[in-house]
Amino acid sequence: MPRRIITLTSDFGLSDQHVGVMKGVILGILPGATIVDITHDVRPYEVLEGAFVVAEAYRWFPRKTVHVVVVDPGVGSSRRPILVEAGGQLFTGPDNGIFSMVRKREPNHKVREITNRAWMVPAVSQTFHGRDVFAPVAAHLAKGGTAARAGKLIADALMLASVEGPQRTGKRTWTGQVLKADRFGNLITNFESAAFASVRTRPFECAIGLEKVSQLATSYSEMPQGEPCLIEGSAGYLEVSLREASAAQQLGVAAGSPVELTVF
Amino acid sequence: MPRRIITLTSDFGLSDQHVGVMKGVILGILPGATIVDITHDVRPYEVLEGAFVVAEAYRWFPRKTVHVVVVDPGVGSSRRPILVEAGGQLFTGPDNGIFSMVRKREPNHKVREITNRAWMVPAVSQTFHGRDVFAPVAAHLAKGGTAARAGKLIADALMLASVEGPQRTGKRTWTGQVLKADRFGNLITNFESAAFASVRTRPFECAIGLEKVSQLATSYSEMPQGEPCLIEGSAGYLEVSLREASAAQQLGVAAGSPVELTVF
Amino acid sequence: MPRRIITLTSDFGLSDQHVGVMKGVILGILPGATIVDITHDVRPYEVLEGAFVVAEAYRWFPRKTVHVVVVDPGVGSSRRPILVEAGGQLFTGPDNGIFSMVRKREPNHKVREITNRAWMVPAVSQTFHGRDVFAPVAAHLAKGGTAARAGKLIADALMLASVEGPQRTGKRTWTGQVLKADRFGNLITNFESAAFASVRTRPFECAIGLEKVSQLATSYSEMPQGEPCLIEGSAGYLEVSLREASAAQQLGVAAGSPVELTVF
Repeated sequence: MPRRIITLTSDFGLSDQHVGVMKGVILGILPGATIVDITHDVRPYEVLEGAFVVAEAYRWFPRKTVHVVVVDPGVGSSRRPILVEAGGQLFTGPDNGIFSMVRKREPNHKVREITNRAWMVPAVSQTFHGRDVFAPVAAHLAKGGTAARAGKLIADALMLASVEGPQRTGKRTWTGQVLKADRFGNLITNFESAAFASVRTRPFECAIGLEKVSQLATSYSEMPQGEPCLIEGSAGYLEVSLREASAAQQLGVAAGSPVELTVF
Repeated sequence: MPRRIITLTSDFGLSDQHVGVMKGVILGILPGATIVDITHDVRPYEVLEGAFVVAEAYRWFPRKTVHVVVVDPGVGSSRRPILVEAGGQLFTGPDNGIFSMVRKREPNHKVREITNRAWMVPAVSQTFHGRDVFAPVAAHLAKGGTAARAGKLIADALMLASVEGPQRTGKRTWTGQVLKADRFGNLITNFESAAFASVRTRPFECAIGLEKVSQLATSYSEMPQGEPCLIEGSAGYLEVSLREASAAQQLGVAAGSPVELTVF
Repeated sequence: MPRRIITLTSDFGLSDQHVGVMKGVILGILPGATIVDITHDVRPYEVLEGAFVVAEAYRWFPRKTVHVVVVDPGVGSSRRPILVEAGGQLFTGPDNGIFSMVRKREPNHKVREITNRAWMVPAVSQTFHGRDVFAPVAAHLAKGGTAARAGKLIADALMLASVEGPQRTGKRTWTGQVLKADRFGNLITNFESAAFASVRTRPFECAIGLEKVSQLATSYSEMPQGEPCLIEGSAGYLEVSLREASAAQQLGVAAGSPVELTVF
């Protein structure tokens, strides 16, 4: 059996011992597991950012990879732990919409509620399901356990409305969200470039933070200094960027912030 | 022989090449070693924080895991390198109290002074024993070398006084320390919740930084906004927290800072 | 065949999914590859800092390790992807001088232009050659592919002038650069301590940021508080340091900043 890969994505940061502990749990079940960190710097509790990150990352991993994603503001409440089978890969995390973007990209997916207590640590805490539920479930799956052993199929797993893209809120106005501020402070929005190609040819106004952006740039190098522009980013979404500076910082905007676009 | 795991904890950060170099040394001795980072963001030189992190983490790793912990303000001085056998696992690092909390939890431990030069790099530097001593020792242990080959048992390894908990400094007053500021800025103190259960029923005052905290919260969500509270944290210690804000930042307090508790 | 190691160095940071994605690509080609992060916190686009980091790190890795280094301001332009064979190890990255310091240390090196499209992902993007070129090339090399299969030898690979050390700009004056600001804010310059041993015995003035440094310290502990000093660092270069404080922060200086030294 070829060794399967387990990836980890979370909002835990790297300054505490939590990520290391999850790896200890996995390696206790599956010695020699191949574990890859995607990122642990998702903005705390920003489920939509986690959904974006895993949807960007999974396509680059081989079949049967198991992705653990823990951005989990509802831990300890009654939200269910779920397992998603999509695109030949497996995904485990809370039922809070974290897999919405993967599921949208992979219409032939299945979702299961994880109920197999034998795949969890003996005493599941109220505060750390990454360690107590999702890490051991991933290890059992990577070890060869079938998805069906995790639990029964469900049809009502939560989908985030925002993955459907911005909502129309006026005749020429849509309201969306920032998916992620990247390392350079570029603000990736949930406006798909293809769906809003009209910004290429018509005047527009994009309200974000306290700023109004009305210029489109086709590359970072042609942007005027000091003035935020819209740009069609490499992930397929409109981004708000500042030449050689952080749009996130200058506009005081982060993952989850609202974005309003009017195309005239 | 099943592959053993080596974990790394340090105050080196991730922006320099030091952690990568330690892994190179390990893999040169034991190709295919499984190496797990716990954290490298221990506050520089804060031995007590390192002691706390490894004591929280090791319990989640399988037997025979080798833990390397390098928070080492005395590197280059005469402090000894040591190996601790405790709880079926192995720990290597400087003899500066870094394993105090593990040793307290595992009374049946043994400590050895590491003297086996064949397990160190040929030219041991004055500045980087993580690379020159602890990484190669861990690799040799993970490869199957016995603890006894590292060196002789010693009985006088350093124990940090602060792991015994806060000192009584008045009739109703104890003085302790901050063990760690976590990712959210919660300040984990060395006051064990069980030993100070009296705060649940009696008025108290906790002096930390320039602040005096006198409220106990039972969950983050019931805390008043903007006012620091005491809370019984999941690690078993009293924590000073601020709702949706960083207590560490607002109080200007970090790992190692003093905490004084008076229970009336 | 023993498993070869692949190391990764970049300026991508860890908050986006990019580093995880590179690992996915590698593991898709070589399941079970051993991947080690050196650092991903090279200052954005600072090629010289990347050159320094890999030159410090590679010596601690076993023969046949493959090092991927991606600090790549020219991605998407016509700069070539290259493979360097040096010191029994392999290095892959852009032809922008990133391997200058390794090549200087290993005069018997060879450089090849990577042209083997079968070793790249099918659709190479204009923006992310770490994922599309360098990660898969490294995986194919670690899998046992010979260097010759990557492409033909070239003789004109770019060397950074600054690895030759500071330029003489006056009778007693040399102008160099900061190679890296380390975790503690020490500023490692490209002045080799051995070549500038005269600072030990003669008065000097080192202009960096807005500061002029004229004191040499032999250890951090003997430095006066609050006053930046020159010190012979453990990497073999002169460093500008501040006792218990960040010289980088206080002087407003970072990797790439100019340094001028006059020895009287």
